[in-house]
Amino acid sequence: PKVVSLPGDGIGPEVTAAAVEVLREVAPDVTIEEHPIGGIAYDNYGDPLPQVTRDAVKDADAVLLGTVGGPQNSPWNRLPRHLRPESGLLALRKALGCYANLRPVRVQPGLEHLSPLKPELARGVDILIVRELLGGVYFDGDRQIEGNTAYNTMRYTTPEVERVARVAFWAAEQRRGRVTSVDKANVLEVSELWRRDVQALRDREYRNVHLNHEYVDSVAMLIVANPSRYDVIVTENLFGDILSDLAAVIPGSLGLMPSASLGDGPGLFEPIHGSAPDIAGQGIANPAAAIMSAAMLLRHGLDRPQVANGVDRAVALALREHPTRDLGGKADTKTFTQAVLNAMG
Amino acid sequence: PKVVSLPGDGIGPEVTAAAVEVLREVAPDVTIEEHPIGGIAYDNYGDPLPQVTRDAVKDADAVLLGTVGGPQNSPWNRLPRHLRPESGLLALRKALGCYANLRPVRVQPGLEHLSPLKPELARGVDILIVRELLGGVYFDGDRQIEGNTAYNTMRYTTPEVERVARVAFWAAEQRRGRVTSVDKANVLEVSELWRRDVQALRDREYRNVHLNHEYVDSVAMLIVANPSRYDVIVTENLFGDILSDLAAVIPGSLGLMPSASLGDGPGLFEPIHGSAPDIAGQGIANPAAAIMSAAMLLRHGLDRPQVANGVDRAVALALREHPTRDLGGKADTKTFTQAVLNAMG
Ligand SMILES: CC(C)[C@H](C(=O)O)[C@@H](O)C(=O)O
Ligand SMILES: CC(C)[C@H](C(=O)O)[C@@H](O)C(=O)O
Repeated sequence: PKVVSLPGDGIGPEVTAAAVEVLREVAPDVTIEEHPIGGIAYDNYGDPLPQVTRDAVKDADAVLLGTVGGPQNSPWNRLPRHLRPESGLLALRKALGCYANLRPVRVQPGLEHLSPLKPELARGVDILIVRELLGGVYFDGDRQIEGNTAYNTMRYTTPEVERVARVAFWAAEQRRGRVTSVDKANVLEVSELWRRDVQALRDREYRNVHLNHEYVDSVAMLIVANPSRYDVIVTENLFGDILSDLAAVIPGSLGLMPSASLGDGPGLFEPIHGSAPDIAGQGIANPAAAIMSAAMLLRHGLDRPQVANGVDRAVALALREHPTRDLGGKADTKTFTQAVLNAMG
Repeated sequence: PKVVSLPGDGIGPEVTAAAVEVLREVAPDVTIEEHPIGGIAYDNYGDPLPQVTRDAVKDADAVLLGTVGGPQNSPWNRLPRHLRPESGLLALRKALGCYANLRPVRVQPGLEHLSPLKPELARGVDILIVRELLGGVYFDGDRQIEGNTAYNTMRYTTPEVERVARVAFWAAEQRRGRVTSVDKANVLEVSELWRRDVQALRDREYRNVHLNHEYVDSVAMLIVANPSRYDVIVTENLFGDILSDLAAVIPGSLGLMPSASLGDGPGLFEPIHGSAPDIAGQGIANPAAAIMSAAMLLRHGLDRPQVANGVDRAVALALREHPTRDLGGKADTKTFTQAVLNAMG
């Protein structure tokens, strides 16, 4: 099997190198090919997703991504929108057809103290957010800025709603069997369609899953006030962007949050943290989320769940024994990665 | 001066009655006229914002609103969208031209333990969220659900951005002088316009205010992980709906959160909590947010800041000495209201 690794910008190359090191160890038969994306790709090829990268990912079995983007005042941010680093990421999601973004939010036992929430609220939280990743206001072509007015269009079709809802129902069946679908159906027609189609699919094909519907503003409150009420959350692209980042603070460190984006082709696996240009190149970035993303790659991309579980267990152990600086510990990127490798024996 | 009171549905009538009682006490010269809105208005007039109410608010000096909407399975929710209770509220905002929704989020000293956040994060939080209330995806006419597809349009024009940004800059000048403008400019053209116009207005007219720009997903994280970093937040309608509700959980009870919606005509003052149909009619609803909304009405609607401060102080005292059930105390609506009246001497 072939994995394409796209290190990207900022701390991307450092954390991706750590994840690749672990992958090579646990899956020595896998070929790993590296290619450019993001700002660095723009600098070298004039395109944040160059053709060489597009070609490489097309016949990969899975793609491991680092992070893209520069500091706020980076000249990259003054480029036309389609040349900015983030556009490379959006174009990659589209090219791979990854329509379902999976974001597990789990508070690890013993790490409740890292949460900004009171420990009694953080304890035992285990949510899976499924975000629609290719539709809505992100990609719709009906968009414009001209003179003193600008608009974007939030659009969904039934097939788009159904394919991502299927992923949520499927995931719920492996978990606690409950899905909360999030919308703003009291205001938006596009949410009315979303709610109708998710409910109809449940009634047709997933009667064993319990489904309820909540408004996005209410979920933003409840996910903080009472996170344990959620099992699987499914929502459209923009709401999912906001809610999945919001939920990601519950475990207390973005450095612990992996993600998987699945579709009809190869899956895309990436840590959710940003490119952290302020600490790039110093060898101190926490690679846990990147390594956990590699575990998701082993599970969903290469269908090796046992190996994936082994990596997750090793990361949990390393986090307890060799925490990185962002977690109040002392381990740098190398030390932490070595601790993970050691923990796997 | 004339105040129109719109009790609405659920616990609306109970908490509005409490606020009106306080208003009569501290501003006996004010005429208070009651009119229907929401589900009850639909039941009696076939319209969630009947003409009689439209006429009454037009020549009011300020409008005091309760809450609208029924339980999730209410037949009101199966009406065509424009007849639902929420549409009465949206139509009212529009009729009054209230384009700036002000949501103060303050953790009262001594009440940090109510917060879902760790006390050290909750302590001293004092944010003002200014939400644009008449534009964006909420009211744009370019919207449709038909067959298997639906869309809404998120649109802004420079004058719409500028008038709400002015309110934010003005408020910041009375506070700590810092505004954070929230958008998704890395993805949306409409956000690009928003960011450009807010910055240009600052550079032209409010050079004494410090302005920065953050992405909505990042703010959703940071408002939980580090709420003290914010002074005034200004954002568009949908992001504001989500972020203001999110921020509202920080003080620990929605029962403590008032709001003011300002525009060119009479202002609209309402608690942010819902209609809580499950406890309606039992006399146990916490009227603190409604009474604090009456205080905002005295301050912004009738220009009586001293009287407003007196009401706020009395509410703070009553909260400490006679907390309601939702706050772990025993006071019912009547007892609490009486405690507020007593505290004013
Ligand atoms: C960088 C940006 C375009 C992206 C998004 O909004 O999808 C990011 O916030 C994410 O969630 O992966
Ligand atoms: C009831 C609903 C239409 C309303 C909104 O989204 O504006 C509510 O959530 C609010 O924030 O006042």
